[in-house]
Amino acid sequence: MSREPFTKIMLPEDKIPKFWYNVQADMPNLPVPGLHPQTKQPLTPADLEPIFARELIAQEVSTERYIEIPAEVRQLYKQYRPSPLFRARQLEKALDTPCRIYYKYEGVSPVGSHKLNSALPQAFFNKIQGIKRLTTETGAGQWGTALSLACRHFGIEAMVYMVKISFTQKPYRRSIMELYGATCVASPSTLTESGRRELAKDPNTPGTLAMAISEAVEDAAQRDDTNYSLGSVLNHVCLHQTIIGQEARLQLEMVDDYPDMVIGCCGGGSNFAGIAFPFLPDKLAGKNIRLIAVEPAACPTLTKGEFTYDYGDAAGLVPIMKMYTLGHNFTPSGIHAGGLRYHGASPLVSQLYHDGLLEAVAVKQNATFAAAMLFARTESIVPAPESAHAIRVAVDEALKAKEEGISRTILFNLSGHGHLDLFSYDRYLSGETEDVEFSCEDLQVSLQDLPQI
Amino acid sequence: MSREPFTKIMLPEDKIPKFWYNVQADMPNLPVPGLHPQTKQPLTPADLEPIFARELIAQEVSTERYIEIPAEVRQLYKQYRPSPLFRARQLEKALDTPCRIYYKYEGVSPVGSHKLNSALPQAFFNKIQGIKRLTTETGAGQWGTALSLACRHFGIEAMVYMVKISFTQKPYRRSIMELYGATCVASPSTLTESGRRELAKDPNTPGTLAMAISEAVEDAAQRDDTNYSLGSVLNHVCLHQTIIGQEARLQLEMVDDYPDMVIGCCGGGSNFAGIAFPFLPDKLAGKNIRLIAVEPAACPTLTKGEFTYDYGDAAGLVPIMKMYTLGHNFTPSGIHAGGLRYHGASPLVSQLYHDGLLEAVAVKQNATFAAAMLFARTESIVPAPESAHAIRVAVDEALKAKEEGISRTILFNLSGHGHLDLFSYDRYLSGETEDVEFSCEDLQVSLQDLPQI
Repeated sequence: MSREPFTKIMLPEDKIPKFWYNVQADMPNLPVPGLHPQTKQPLTPADLEPIFARELIAQEVSTERYIEIPAEVRQLYKQYRPSPLFRARQLEKALDTPCRIYYKYEGVSPVGSHKLNSALPQAFFNKIQGIKRLTTETGAGQWGTALSLACRHFGIEAMVYMVKISFTQKPYRRSIMELYGATCVASPSTLTESGRRELAKDPNTPGTLAMAISEAVEDAAQRDDTNYSLGSVLNHVCLHQTIIGQEARLQLEMVDDYPDMVIGCCGGGSNFAGIAFPFLPDKLAGKNIRLIAVEPAACPTLTKGEFTYDYGDAAGLVPIMKMYTLGHNFTPSGIHAGGLRYHGASPLVSQLYHDGLLEAVAVKQNATFAAAMLFARTESIVPAPESAHAIRVAVDEALKAKEEGISRTILFNLSGHGHLDLFSYDRYLSGETEDVEFSCEDLQVSLQDLPQI
Repeated sequence: MSREPFTKIMLPEDKIPKFWYNVQADMPNLPVPGLHPQTKQPLTPADLEPIFARELIAQEVSTERYIEIPAEVRQLYKQYRPSPLFRARQLEKALDTPCRIYYKYEGVSPVGSHKLNSALPQAFFNKIQGIKRLTTETGAGQWGTALSLACRHFGIEAMVYMVKISFTQKPYRRSIMELYGATCVASPSTLTESGRRELAKDPNTPGTLAMAISEAVEDAAQRDDTNYSLGSVLNHVCLHQTIIGQEARLQLEMVDDYPDMVIGCCGGGSNFAGIAFPFLPDKLAGKNIRLIAVEPAACPTLTKGEFTYDYGDAAGLVPIMKMYTLGHNFTPSGIHAGGLRYHGASPLVSQLYHDGLLEAVAVKQNATFAAAMLFARTESIVPAPESAHAIRVAVDEALKAKEEGISRTILFNLSGHGHLDLFSYDRYLSGETEDVEFSCEDLQVSLQDLPQI
């Protein structure tokens, strides 16, 4: 029997962080302010109040290093946090690498992914302000599920606009939202002006996240009792996810280790921000640590996009943000990592990447599934296709270090399990997943009406 | 904000039990020996050796109170054990009950259910005996998935015969087994004599667990390098699952509590045995504690079956056991709790039930889904449809105690999560789940050729 032992590093419950870490306190260059989508003038907090809770707007622009996690939110975090940190000894052995590979496992949350880390505080801050209803969009369904549950906890109604192709192809994701009491409709829908406009253009459109965002924002803007909620991209979402990296730091300290590199998959950017940002102060202080965002080759926002102002949604209803973008009308190919199919990247991640503090890598779909399969067969857990992007690069780095004969410490975020994604694995095992690569001709950034910097 | 706090009771890793608890040491009446399916003579260990590992055969008949868990198995348990015990405060509040409700959550295992607790030692004991290949059957897929992973850990080939209707309706369950490297075929198949016989009788048969068991046993019996593995019913499977109840006892001690009743769903019986058996010694010593097995009204083995000798499989290849049974040719209706669709019950559970030491309740499908939905909306976790049977009775008991104005401590086993069962919830939410009840005319126990006691 030549198995390596499992190493699970558990933090005591009283070590759940009491504060979120706000990277804006330490950034050499803060992101430039967003612009009002109509006036094109820099946004004021008042511009955001029709759709966001005041506390979340304050977090969006805060430069305080630590922001307290409300007791009510910590209480709910305790159901699944601290999440475990595992040493991937079986994977190390299979790769015959001298590296130590650790992964932080967020799939232990009741919705199976990290998304609940931000859904809970977003629902809470809206609740204490008297908001009765939250709207949101969802692609693959992870965020919609998390917000549905968070709303249920705080007695808020949830209205989810789900990208039509996912709504049709993944009816069970809709079922879990309905089970939590949310209403879920296919987007574009006939319920909103922007939805009807898209349907008039193309009644058979599969929908995009950008369209669904437009609908959710329009809905929220029209009702006083309703706010809007976004599951990634924004500063306050990245903030909430830093609980991941903070815990991971403490867990690595428990085994006297420290990462040479920190890896996370990157769609809108919140999961990557969550694992990576808490290590940024060390890097700024001169520590030799790499922070690596991994994106799909079919939607390579950071590696192939432009750093410019762009809309966050299709209809131009949400603030214009300066970010790496492939264009707000870009429709990514139907890769299975639906959570990474967004045209833009978080302004915080974008700015830090632009400033050379982060790295980015794009990986292809089949190589990513291959890494996921190796991981499942060694470490037991079936990863979400999104999370598998981080695994791919962790594996590549471990093999590179082996070639170089160097032992490195690799930390990555396993942001969710793949029990809701077995359809995708079925396609992969049947040889039916394609390697679509983004081509520069796809770049749809066309913002002549926007101020350039 | 009137939320109740979550209470998660975690056991330190070094408190994972080092021994399984063997209820045969304490039973007032031991189960009568099984009979050889051909000779109808009491089984000897030698009869079982062609298909079972020697250590497992020894466990099957052992009357030692504690059987040591091998270090290699404990090491693997550590990936997901100790599993958390939760106080269901939100559920209590929704029911406005004076009861304290606790649930042991086995869905944290990488396969999402308790099944891995027995799959790991079964694969291990076969491995050390030099076995290269294990065959098994699976219905809904939970057991097949667990055994596939366990075999992967120990470098054993896994061959899973999956009930045809599940194989067709739930292709993703097959995918996860293949992801772990197992071979999975629809049963009845053309690979075995017993499969071919069933297909000749009815080429369109949906298959049953009893048919799939016949195929797996026939396959194993024909190859020296191959053994057979069963996921429930047998004494050694119940033994392995006692780690659940042992941990739960320790966790309740940590909060100074003790259950008035212990509840588990019951198909073959191993999950119920796992949570309940470790409390039996207290009951035998005079403690006032109820141990309640919950079965589906569509397959009410304990409450409507006969306590008699019957075959465990369709073709009559496996030992004849004395158990509560609805007849080995009974085909239960297509309820969504596929894991509870077995005609018999564990001989240990059957004997203890016969002796009045256990209770049994049958519940209907829609009432069970209703309880599952209430649970998801209060406690966040979407339960497996099987586990929801235990929730239904926990809720009923909590409401009864409320009427009586008595505070009771209720412990139940949440044996798995329902992320792989959203199809079933979709049907329930669409009003398409039926309340099929077993009728006495369905009873197919017809064993004129078997010795009666």
